[in-house]
Amino acid sequence: MAVTLKDVAIRAGVSRSAVSRAFTDGASVSGKMRKKVEKAAADLGYRPNALASSLTTGRTKLVGLVSNNFHNPIFLEVFDLFTRGLQERGLRPLIVNLSDNQDPEQSVRMLQQYSVDGVVVASSTLPPSFAKTFRDAKVPVVHCFGRHASSLEVHVVGIDNVEAGRMAAREFVKRGYRRVAFMGGPQEATSTQDRFSGFTSEMARHSAIACSFSFAQAYSFEAGRREMQRLLDAGPMEAYFCGDDVLSIGAMSAISEAGLHVPEDIGILGLNDMEMSRWENIALTTIHQPIRQIINSSIELIVAMLDDPERYPEARLFPCRIMERSTLRPLTDR
Amino acid sequence: MAVTLKDVAIRAGVSRSAVSRAFTDGASVSGKMRKKVEKAAADLGYRPNALASSLTTGRTKLVGLVSNNFHNPIFLEVFDLFTRGLQERGLRPLIVNLSDNQDPEQSVRMLQQYSVDGVVVASSTLPPSFAKTFRDAKVPVVHCFGRHASSLEVHVVGIDNVEAGRMAAREFVKRGYRRVAFMGGPQEATSTQDRFSGFTSEMARHSAIACSFSFAQAYSFEAGRREMQRLLDAGPMEAYFCGDDVLSIGAMSAISEAGLHVPEDIGILGLNDMEMSRWENIALTTIHQPIRQIINSSIELIVAMLDDPERYPEARLFPCRIMERSTLRPLTDR
Repeated sequence: MAVTLKDVAIRAGVSRSAVSRAFTDGASVSGKMRKKVEKAAADLGYRPNALASSLTTGRTKLVGLVSNNFHNPIFLEVFDLFTRGLQERGLRPLIVNLSDNQDPEQSVRMLQQYSVDGVVVASSTLPPSFAKTFRDAKVPVVHCFGRHASSLEVHVVGIDNVEAGRMAAREFVKRGYRRVAFMGGPQEATSTQDRFSGFTSEMARHSAIACSFSFAQAYSFEAGRREMQRLLDAGPMEAYFCGDDVLSIGAMSAISEAGLHVPEDIGILGLNDMEMSRWENIALTTIHQPIRQIINSSIELIVAMLDDPERYPEARLFPCRIMERSTLRPLTDR
Repeated sequence: MAVTLKDVAIRAGVSRSAVSRAFTDGASVSGKMRKKVEKAAADLGYRPNALASSLTTGRTKLVGLVSNNFHNPIFLEVFDLFTRGLQERGLRPLIVNLSDNQDPEQSVRMLQQYSVDGVVVASSTLPPSFAKTFRDAKVPVVHCFGRHASSLEVHVVGIDNVEAGRMAAREFVKRGYRRVAFMGGPQEATSTQDRFSGFTSEMARHSAIACSFSFAQAYSFEAGRREMQRLLDAGPMEAYFCGDDVLSIGAMSAISEAGLHVPEDIGILGLNDMEMSRWENIALTTIHQPIRQIINSSIELIVAMLDDPERYPEARLFPCRIMERSTLRPLTDR
């Protein structure tokens, strides 16, 4: 049988409440009492139960990470940074996978039942209302990769996706492409909408450049491959700004299957700069999204909200930059 | 203020223990009492706290996933399958990242404090003693990707790595390679040791074929790239069985940087069959490790141990198979 708090209380000759206080950070207990309890606990091999003590402190130190696309390789970095960032602060990651399209209300209920101290929603394809459900339920929440809107209702950490779209368009202009396209992620995603809006608004300033657009079904290799196969059948443009890196790699795969070459026949520009984009076999030119800063900042915000749950919502946006590798034609001297 | 169990008890006019029993699966409570409590709970908007109720049931429904290499892309599939598999059974994944080389004793203490119902250790590089620490602490544990040894002390789920090594060697023989090599993962990993042993013992039967070996520092792209650069400088063999897919892709990158071609100049065989190996840009010929079966079986074992913590340890080994893509020369007609 496991040693209980009651056993320690009997052994130390003190009340159960005294034992509980001795193991609670910041609780009022004399040094002498704490010593007595610690000795009894050591004698019996008692270890305080973090979940039981959470009933006293109201803190479980569990932080939920909720997402809906565990297949996107960018999540390797997200998981690694998120779990390490929490562990360094004595917090623990509880992961919720919405891949099977779980009902948002159900995830909120589940995370409430597990008494998580806070939740990071890491997704650009879940609607802003999803994160808001947590806020309404008084669970500290940060929407990571979310949309920065004027009527900010929850904390948002990520990039300015409109600006990223403009950056892509400027890059195509600089490199002298005359027929370009946006091959976005799923159309309902705020990231897709914002990148599209930035890309097309910048392109609208260059009437000599033909610009078209289409959308893939998901942020996945297969979706990118299928969408590019369709575009190749219809007659391709000179360069594509793809929704993200994994879509880009899928598109490159379709191009190579068709016997065409990147960047000689078609240029490809991604977004994310995930680890595989740096693999020489891929060498994708892409817009770097600063994942490390985004995840660390999301954790910092969650930690700040633990002390101040009513903290006024803010958007933290990090600048992107182009990582030139080998999937766009070289800069022209025009 | 949150609604507490006490509030529900007062509203329903019953004892707190009755409310607790009404919300505990399998606890003794009359239908009438349950209705009364449920009505009071609904009136007040009370939601039972899973962690609080765990103090009654002794179950938290939290299952730990412990690993030490979140950077290996195979973990995308592991996380996805693990989190979905648990969720389907009403269990929740608590993730522990040992990338920063946390002390094993410390992880055990931490997981005990969080009162996880069980732990899946998913690693082939952690020593078998790591999983045993959980068993000794009476935490149900399964060592996924672990070594099948005659003195099995914890449940092991994975493949027969010795047989996988033999399979690789037979494949090289069949394809007529005369100078082959094993470029393993870290030498201290049981998976490396077993694949090495199978590969070399099979090769020992073919005295006409020259066979050499070396080990990379880690299961990572960079380690594979660096090790292959070193091998190329020393004068390469005709084909390499690499420790896993991500090492293979790193090796292929070094080969292509050196102006050589796969499979014309050098053949590469991986192990895992992770998603990126199927990307046409990579098209790695590899030994398929059945990750889905391994993860699902690990979860099934954990669930079985929840009812029978003393369950006699078993090894569940799944067969592998070669996935032919385009990194080995075609079969010869010898």
